[in-house]
Parts: sequence; structure tokens; C-alpha cells
Amino acid sequence: MGGFWFTEKQTENFGITMKINRTLHTETTEFQHLEMAETAEWGNMLFLDGMVMTSQRDEWVYHEMVAHVPLFTHPNPEKVLVVGGGDGGVIREVLKHPSVKKAVLVEIDGKVIEYSKKYLPEIAGELENERVEVIVGDGFMHIAESQNEYDVIMVDSTEPVGPAVNLFTKGFYAGISKALKEDGIFVAQTDNPWFKADLIQQVQRDVKEIFPITTLYIANIPTYPSGMWTFTMGSKKHNPLEVAEDRFHEIDTKYYTKELHNAAFVLPKFVKDLTE
Amino acid sequence: MGGFWFTEKQTENFGITMKINRTLHTETTEFQHLEMAETAEWGNMLFLDGMVMTSQRDEWVYHEMVAHVPLFTHPNPEKVLVVGGGDGGVIREVLKHPSVKKAVLVEIDGKVIEYSKKYLPEIAGELENERVEVIVGDGFMHIAESQNEYDVIMVDSTEPVGPAVNLFTKGFYAGISKALKEDGIFVAQTDNPWFKADLIQQVQRDVKEIFPITTLYIANIPTYPSGMWTFTMGSKKHNPLEVAEDRFHEIDTKYYTKELHNAAFVLPKFVKDLTE
Repeated sequence: MGGFWFTEKQTENFGITMKINRTLHTETTEFQHLEMAETAEWGNMLFLDGMVMTSQRDEWVYHEMVAHVPLFTHPNPEKVLVVGGGDGGVIREVLKHPSVKKAVLVEIDGKVIEYSKKYLPEIAGELENERVEVIVGDGFMHIAESQNEYDVIMVDSTEPVGPAVNLFTKGFYAGISKALKEDGIFVAQTDNPWFKADLIQQVQRDVKEIFPITTLYIANIPTYPSGMWTFTMGSKKHNPLEVAEDRFHEIDTKYYTKELHNAAFVLPKFVKDLTE
Repeated sequence: MGGFWFTEKQTENFGITMKINRTLHTETTEFQHLEMAETAEWGNMLFLDGMVMTSQRDEWVYHEMVAHVPLFTHPNPEKVLVVGGGDGGVIREVLKHPSVKKAVLVEIDGKVIEYSKKYLPEIAGELENERVEVIVGDGFMHIAESQNEYDVIMVDSTEPVGPAVNLFTKGFYAGISKALKEDGIFVAQTDNPWFKADLIQQVQRDVKEIFPITTLYIANIPTYPSGMWTFTMGSKKHNPLEVAEDRFHEIDTKYYTKELHNAAFVLPKFVKDLTE
């Protein structure tokens, strides 16, 4: 096919492959293997441990859907925590909500922040915003030390291998519940139903034991395994499917709309079955 | 990575790759290059001109969504035409509707039918059903020769290259309109919005000039480019978003539900923009 190609094996027997124009940075950090490259199809792209994290061309799907669904579900989110998400994309979307006074980012790997700022500036640029506090540290520990503090918590983690393994445990969800205020909401990326059905079922079971309103919603992310991504939401009080019409305000997006807010919770049958 | 891998370049610079356990059949037919292989991830799989057509593991998404959305939109579909679709998957879904008295399949390449029956029996098995008439011939010509005959027409074609190029023209949609009864409905697969936005826009424009109710709906198909697939529907009278609740009947599916019937029309913003 000519030139250099990067292939991610999304399963043992299936993957995606893409042409690399040039490598921008490669480094084994304290936590993981980090690669930044310019791809011919997706623009600049961040890989961690050989897995696609984000690309300039399709990053907005994930970032918008992580941020806007819980933030419109909450009637007045003022203090928000993002665990992981060192590329800054979720923070950028969070700041589109004028009610948010403070957004805290806790990313374990400072190198992700450093190289995202350098090579993904449209994604990471808002990390410098005065409403944002960036902490390079362990999100699990930050959660454990927080109590009744946040309106919305978003878990923007890697897969449940390597540094993110603690972020898919029941103890973590219990900690999140404690760190949230009495009407708080959390959302976590929970991989895809084609290759990780067991994970989705497990997380749904665990979150249901802690949060009275537990839901699952989906989005199409072409560079992620199977193209269908799931997000698990746990809410203490507010139902994402009962958002008052006047709660929605105009927002600059490419994927999220207020109509899609509801439609994203309507699951294909085989996905719905994983939540029951 | 070991063993033989098949790679489909979905664009010049991006593709999917999968492990092949063994090749089942390879042949250059009168119309295209046909390959059937047993893959490690997706089961048996049909490729035409190097592009994934269908796999045992995910075929039901496409086949259910092509068939059930128009068939539940129509109040009483009795005579149905499938153009292309020689693997038989759409026909199998069509026959789940008891109102259907006759389903006609017009597939240009008899070899697709032959090898689907041999290697994809759960998909192609219903081609033998007594309610089905299989015609090996040119769908474009069949449409041109039909008048006021069908309740629902489904275009299950390959990409607009090779034998299917005529099936993406305005003349073809005009022919479909003529072949349909006065309250007829047609649906066509219209590729994906990430790599083929121009095609979707063109088809929407063309169909709107012919059908008063033109819509677009989506489904997640992991082995198709970008994972997000679109279907364009043209309807003379019946609105797919105004189906009477009691029109839906129980149906054995893995993807389609009556709730998803409506949600599939709620498009991400960048896709919605292609329809306007």
C-alpha cells in the first residue's frame, strides 16, 4: 500500500489501519507508551499503549457526548470534575456551559497534557482557561479524598488496562457517589458492545447498586472499536430523559443536539439487553 | 501478527483488517470479484471487489434496518421488491412481516446467490421460501419495466462503482417512483457520512425532487466504513415518524425495536446538515 501504516488490533483478530504521514512524538512515560502522529485520514492523532485515544477529525463526537449529556441533565452544574482526559477535549466542551464556575481536570500522566497542547491545540487549548484547574495526579485518589464537592464528574479514561484499571471498579463508583453533591451526576466511557459486552454488563450492575438512576447511551466514533461507543451515566436525582425543554440552551456542536440527547439513550436491542 | 489478514481500504488512507482462517471461494464473475472467507472475528464473510458485503456476526444490523423501517411505515405491505441483496438477508427480514404475500429479489450476479446459499445459509436460507421469487437480472431494467406494482422497494446495492453505478442516479429513483403504487415507499443504502458526505447530499437532493417525504436514518455496522451507515427513504404518502402505535407487531430482531425505529431518524448534527 506504500508508506508507513499504523494498525491497532482492536481485538485479537480485527483492527483498523491508517496511513501515517509522520511521527510527531514517541515516548514511554511513567505510565504508558505515548505516540503522537500526523495521519493522512484523521489529522494529528494521539495513541496510548497502541490504542487510538483521539484524532483531530473525529474528536468532537466523544468530547461532546461525554460533556453535554450530563451537563444538560443537571439543572445548574457549577463545579465539574474530569478524571483523565488530559487531551483537554472534555474540558473544552464543559466550558461551553456558562453555569460552570470551575472545572477540575485530574490527569495521571502529565506527558499527555504536554503533548496534546503541542500537537492538538484545538483540543487542548482551553486547559489554559481561568475557570480550569489542572491537577497532574491520580484520579482514583482525588475521588477518594473528595466529599460532597462536585455537581458532575466525568470519567474520560483509557481502556481498563494499565493506569485506568482502578477506574472500572465498584469501589471507584462508590467514591464518585461520595464526591458528588446530593443531586450529582457522573458519566464514564464504557467501551463498545461488540467486543466488550461483559464490561458493559458489569459496570451497569455495579453502578445500579449505587445510583438510583443508571442509564446507558451511545455515539458513533469511527476510530474507536466497532464504531459504536457507550457511556454509562449514574445520577442521584436528575433523569437524563426528563430534561425540561427550556433547560437546553444554544451551543456550538457538530454532533450533539437536544434531540440527539434523548435519541442516544434508545439502544439497539442487543445493547439494551446488556443493561437488563 | 501471524497468519493471513484481509485489509479493506475504506478510503485511500484508512481501512479495517481482519484475520482470515481460510478462503472458502474466490471467483471473478461476469460482474465483479467475489470472495468468500471464514474470518476469525466475524464468521463467514462475503467480499465483492475487495469490499465487505456481509458477515455472519453483524449481518442482522443492516438487514433488519433496511427491511423493518419501511415495512412498518407502510400500513399493509403486500408486494415487495429487493434490488440487489443476493445474499438473501433482506428477504429473510421481509418475510417476518405476515402481510407480505410476495417478495421479488432481482440480483444481477447469480454467483452471489449461489455462494451465499452455500456459505451463509442462515442469511440466504429464506430465498427458497414459497413467497419469494428470485430473478437473476438487471434491477435497473426490472424497475424500468414495472409500473404501479410494488408497495415497498428496497435497494440493497454495492457501492456506486461497478455494477451498481446506475442505482445511484436520479433516473433510477424516478423509475422506482413509477414502479411503486400510489402510497409506495422505497429505501436505499446510501453509504456513510464520514467518507461519502457528497453522495448522501446528492441522493437526498435527487430523492426530494421525486418523493414528497424524504428522510435519512442511520445504524451502526461495525464492518462497514466508519461504522455509521445511512439509509435514504423516499415515501409517497406515509411518514416513517408517524407510524400508529398498533401498527407495530412483535418481531424477532437483534437490533431493530419500535423505539429505535424513531430514534434512527434523529441524526447527529453533521449528518443532519447533509439533508438540508
